Amino acid sequence: MQLQPIGHIHTPFGSKDECPIQPAFASAEGRVELFPEYADGLKDIEGFSHLYLLYLFDRAGEIRLVRPTFLDDEPHGIYASRHPCRPNGIGISIVRLKERQESALIVEGVDMLDGTPLLDIKPYIPRFDHVESATGGWTEGKPWRPKPGGRE
Amino acid sequence: MQLQPIGHIHTPFGSKDECPIQPAFASAEGRVELFPEYADGLKDIEGFSHLYLLYLFDRAGEIRLVRPTFLDDEPHGIYASRHPCRPNGIGISIVRLKERQESALIVEGVDMLDGTPLLDIKPYIPRFDHVESATGGWTEGKPWRPKPGGRE
Repeated sequence: MQLQPIGHIHTPFGSKDECPIQPAFASAEGRVELFPEYADGLKDIEGFSHLYLLYLFDRAGEIRLVRPTFLDDEPHGIYASRHPCRPNGIGISIVRLKERQESALIVEGVDMLDGTPLLDIKPYIPRFDHVESATGGWTEGKPWRPKPGGRE
Repeated sequence: MQLQPIGHIHTPFGSKDECPIQPAFASAEGRVELFPEYADGLKDIEGFSHLYLLYLFDRAGEIRLVRPTFLDDEPHGIYASRHPCRPNGIGISIVRLKERQESALIVEGVDMLDGTPLLDIKPYIPRFDHVESATGGWTEGKPWRPKPGGRE
């Protein structure tokens, strides 16, 4: 299947070293700019506080199935991590919706590179997406550490 | 960008009418079967209780930017809904991991059609994905209703 971007995500981050590790720890504001022909698809989005952005990791590096990540130096399987260098390089980030402006959304909590191609937007619906009992596997209890050192 | 499935998701659902509306309400067991060459990417996945599956809506119908959904008869923008008939038809579902078996995962809570092409697996990491304050927009307070009637 061939993907066609529906727009771009504008963020303050021009290089990977500037990107925060995950949006939950980011307060950076971004602008999600849809191509105008998709603007109708935003109807009623204003009521949601949070959105999933699906986008392409268009500047990711070499794909490896097992590699260290941003949390420690142990090699973990790519499917047990959120590392961007993965087969079918699709990223998902949860951001807070601040405002809709025609075919654009002002959001908070972006963690992707400026100009990242946008593939989809889905509302974060608490009764689907809020998993009270979830456990964090190998990531639990790992303190954040400054980049660089993991996320490449 | 061209996507290549990394495997398939096997579920009890042979037709759209049989599929539950979202995995949070589904207890159906499924088998996520990766192609063997991706098995190494599952290292350390056993520690996570929940996973995001990213997959192709490979049997979705006509794409419309505004349409009624499974919750009511009002037309909503596709980006304010999780309806499968969308540009770049990528689905995300959160499932509970029960067991890893070599290149396969036994999971609970599948809501997709049997044989759905798998694109990616990401661990559900509570400190990234658990948004305590999220609100459900137009979906809030809407009772579920039996299919058919919305999700096509």
